[in-house]
Amino acid sequence: MGGVPHRSYDHYCGVSRALDVVGDRWSLLLVRELSSGPRRYSDLFADLPGISTDILAARLKDLERDGILTRQRVGPRASTAVYELTATGTALRPVLDALSVWGTPLLGERRATDAVRAHWFALPLGRAVAQHFPDETVTVFIGDTVFHVTVDDAGHVSHHDGPAAEPGRALHLDLDTATAVAIGAVPLAEVAESR
Amino acid sequence: MGGVPHRSYDHYCGVSRALDVVGDRWSLLLVRELSSGPRRYSDLFADLPGISTDILAARLKDLERDGILTRQRVGPRASTAVYELTATGTALRPVLDALSVWGTPLLGERRATDAVRAHWFALPLGRAVAQHFPDETVTVFIGDTVFHVTVDDAGHVSHHDGPAAEPGRALHLDLDTATAVAIGAVPLAEVAESR
Repeated sequence: MGGVPHRSYDHYCGVSRALDVVGDRWSLLLVRELSSGPRRYSDLFADLPGISTDILAARLKDLERDGILTRQRVGPRASTAVYELTATGTALRPVLDALSVWGTPLLGERRATDAVRAHWFALPLGRAVAQHFPDETVTVFIGDTVFHVTVDDAGHVSHHDGPAAEPGRALHLDLDTATAVAIGAVPLAEVAESR
Repeated sequence: MGGVPHRSYDHYCGVSRALDVVGDRWSLLLVRELSSGPRRYSDLFADLPGISTDILAARLKDLERDGILTRQRVGPRASTAVYELTATGTALRPVLDALSVWGTPLLGERRATDAVRAHWFALPLGRAVAQHFPDETVTVFIGDTVFHVTVDDAGHVSHHDGPAAEPGRALHLDLDTATAVAIGAVPLAEVAESR
């Protein structure tokens, strides 16, 4: 690793240039994992079932080189590395959202081979929150997973680790309910009313 | 080919499911090529510099299987195959747009190794048209390439081969001007005024 040349499409086109950077297998899922806050290598490895440690290390290196994420040493004796999206990496949110909008109807029933993590529902739930509660800060609890959703003045949705600082609406969902809201089978407003 | 099993991430997540279908190298660029109308195999091969005929054939087969495009025989004695996006494939437009928005600032100067096609500017030019002339049908001429941009009531932008049926604004651009508008260096309104 290191010094491996970029494989570019060599097309003078914005789509191609974007895919030069984030078009490799796993890259956008790594951005998904970092979309609510920093993560350690071990978090990433645990929440990207199917990735190999070689590929994970290589992708992290590539994405750091390309300015999508930064790597910082934290903790006692700076012993732990933490990965965090840069502003450029955070700007990929609309790409994740467009893929999520298009791919969520394909979810159907969970397959026996499918891994699932509660935080993977943050993207569709964020869109549901923006639609139903655009003026509120909403904290979502799914099991041990806690994140809050914010919508800025321009309507851009984002989600962030942990509960919101200021009090606001809280939603406690289980995975089945999160799924139902994500695929649009149940309106978020209906779930919220019963809490 | 044929019967090759899908390589899935096996993540119960909309982003992963979308990438299961269009995450392979070249897939989204194939969707880009078909985004303004049907294309023959030879068109696709010519406008995807760097692709091999094996990969192109395999991707077309995969994307047909997954309902992104259809293949139809046309012409005398049904001798020519033409590929066309389905409604599901057309629904990937927001993914292309999000990638284009993110990737266009990376374009910079054209590199000696870069291929370029006039129709690759249709995505950023479509966004510029939607911003500057939201209520007009605009036909764009770049050399031999002609397409028109439409914006529907919901603000969704699309582009289509050939000139618009009804009279409207016409823009004649060369590649340099198209580039300047695409990267935001020159407002489209300024270019339009001088024509």
